Amino acid sequence: MPKLSEGHFRISMTATAQEKPYFSKVTVIGVGLIGGSLALKMKANGLWGTVVGVGRSKANLEKAVELGVIDSFTHDVSEGVRGADLVIIAVPVRTTIPVLKDAVPALKIGAIVTDVGSVKGGIVDEAEKLMPEGVFFVGAHPIAGTEYSGVEAAFATLFEGRRCILTPTGKTSREAFEAVGALWRAAGSKLVEMDTAAHDKVLASVSHLPHMIAYSLVNSVADVDGEIDGVLGFSAGGFKDFTRIASSSPAMWLDICAMNRDALLDVIKVFESRVTRLKTLLQAEDYTALMEEFERAKRVRDSI
Amino acid sequence: MPKLSEGHFRISMTATAQEKPYFSKVTVIGVGLIGGSLALKMKANGLWGTVVGVGRSKANLEKAVELGVIDSFTHDVSEGVRGADLVIIAVPVRTTIPVLKDAVPALKIGAIVTDVGSVKGGIVDEAEKLMPEGVFFVGAHPIAGTEYSGVEAAFATLFEGRRCILTPTGKTSREAFEAVGALWRAAGSKLVEMDTAAHDKVLASVSHLPHMIAYSLVNSVADVDGEIDGVLGFSAGGFKDFTRIASSSPAMWLDICAMNRDALLDVIKVFESRVTRLKTLLQAEDYTALMEEFERAKRVRDSI
Repeated sequence: MPKLSEGHFRISMTATAQEKPYFSKVTVIGVGLIGGSLALKMKANGLWGTVVGVGRSKANLEKAVELGVIDSFTHDVSEGVRGADLVIIAVPVRTTIPVLKDAVPALKIGAIVTDVGSVKGGIVDEAEKLMPEGVFFVGAHPIAGTEYSGVEAAFATLFEGRRCILTPTGKTSREAFEAVGALWRAAGSKLVEMDTAAHDKVLASVSHLPHMIAYSLVNSVADVDGEIDGVLGFSAGGFKDFTRIASSSPAMWLDICAMNRDALLDVIKVFESRVTRLKTLLQAEDYTALMEEFERAKRVRDSI
Repeated sequence: MPKLSEGHFRISMTATAQEKPYFSKVTVIGVGLIGGSLALKMKANGLWGTVVGVGRSKANLEKAVELGVIDSFTHDVSEGVRGADLVIIAVPVRTTIPVLKDAVPALKIGAIVTDVGSVKGGIVDEAEKLMPEGVFFVGAHPIAGTEYSGVEAAFATLFEGRRCILTPTGKTSREAFEAVGALWRAAGSKLVEMDTAAHDKVLASVSHLPHMIAYSLVNSVADVDGEIDGVLGFSAGGFKDFTRIASSSPAMWLDICAMNRDALLDVIKVFESRVTRLKTLLQAEDYTALMEEFERAKRVRDSI
């Protein structure tokens, strides 16, 4: 199975690219928390020249201009990417490929295209097939976010000290990879290189599965609340913290589930068997084995 | 099914008891975070005269004297409770009844005995059978705690604004119930009255089940880590918050599981069916129904 390397590039970058990954024209498709925060940071660092925003909401794009996140905007993807040296696709994961299809005919030779999606397999494979000769795709996933969304939530330090996973393949251009790496390093991220399958399984485990669990737990307690009126009134403290992520955007999580279906199903099955084991041990009153389960979990959790 | 009443007593207390639930000799069995915090608050308020601590650890009891939590201590339960007007049993839930059995022969007529356990059914039923004529048991569960334990973690304001569930039965003395209610009110708690079965199901849902889930999730990710080395290294932010409770004391949680086995098994089954439903919908790519599940959870969670 694949091993992960962390905190460094396997491919060393040129000194020039490391110091100044400058792009004179950049297009950000999806000017929200992630795309907006990256643009703010890059403009503040003088690393991006002109920044064009592409999106559907005029109000959001006007706000982005007002906040200095972008210089101009359009609702038309192909118009937006024309002449861009760098294109950042920062839309919900199920929209990435459709947007890329619209962009492809207008991309200039030498352009680098990258994304920020929390699912990589389906996106990177498809994106590589779509790339014309001389246009380069690099899959990226900055692991950062807040509970807020939209450009008004954007801030330049969002990525500082956070990891950004890059998922190069055998087809990835080394130069493009180094340039995207330098970009995220300039944003303050710690870089991690991983193949797309490993990325998707890791994220399924530590992020997508916990969301499924939070949704399931909240719905379970709502079921019990139908039996004993008032149960939800006791959902203070720990339970509230534990289920905070059940307030995340259903639409965004539907996208992620659909895009990372196989890896997510795999880890759901692992989790189901773990819950069934606890249930079976409790039914059998096998407290020795139950204690071992708890102790293993505590040991693992304390080691994180 | 039972309805819960919240924030008030169904049985009104006498003005005297409400104002000054004074006890001249109190015995606290188990001088840890809960027992210690209650003693600190009651002594500070001048509501407890002499306080005797009972426990196994001499170091902890000496510390309790040093901190002014108790006035004296003994390792012997029956010696400790002799002459006490009020006995607080604040030990792990599986130890409550064994401790009570040791205490019974030495309890004085008129004494009130109460506990603080997070499981009530098995404890209250058994305690009522053990009580001699003229000695009164009242089940109580202050919903408060921190991640720390032991008397050094105790502080007088632990219960302020937190709920305390009282679980009277048909056998509960009204006077004893009012006195225990006044005690917790003086500690700053908001009182809630509930029958023991409802208490156990509520706690199974909002507290015991989440612990089982956290243990299961951590063990699942550890399983996946065996396949893809390094998964646990990505357990930052959300996952860490989500699984914090998996660091709780395995021994304490084993006790709770054993004592609340039936209610916990019930809610585990409800949860399993909720997880299976998400899995089945995802397998079938029924994204309309999956979206409804997510939206229901978000609606419920946002309403808390």
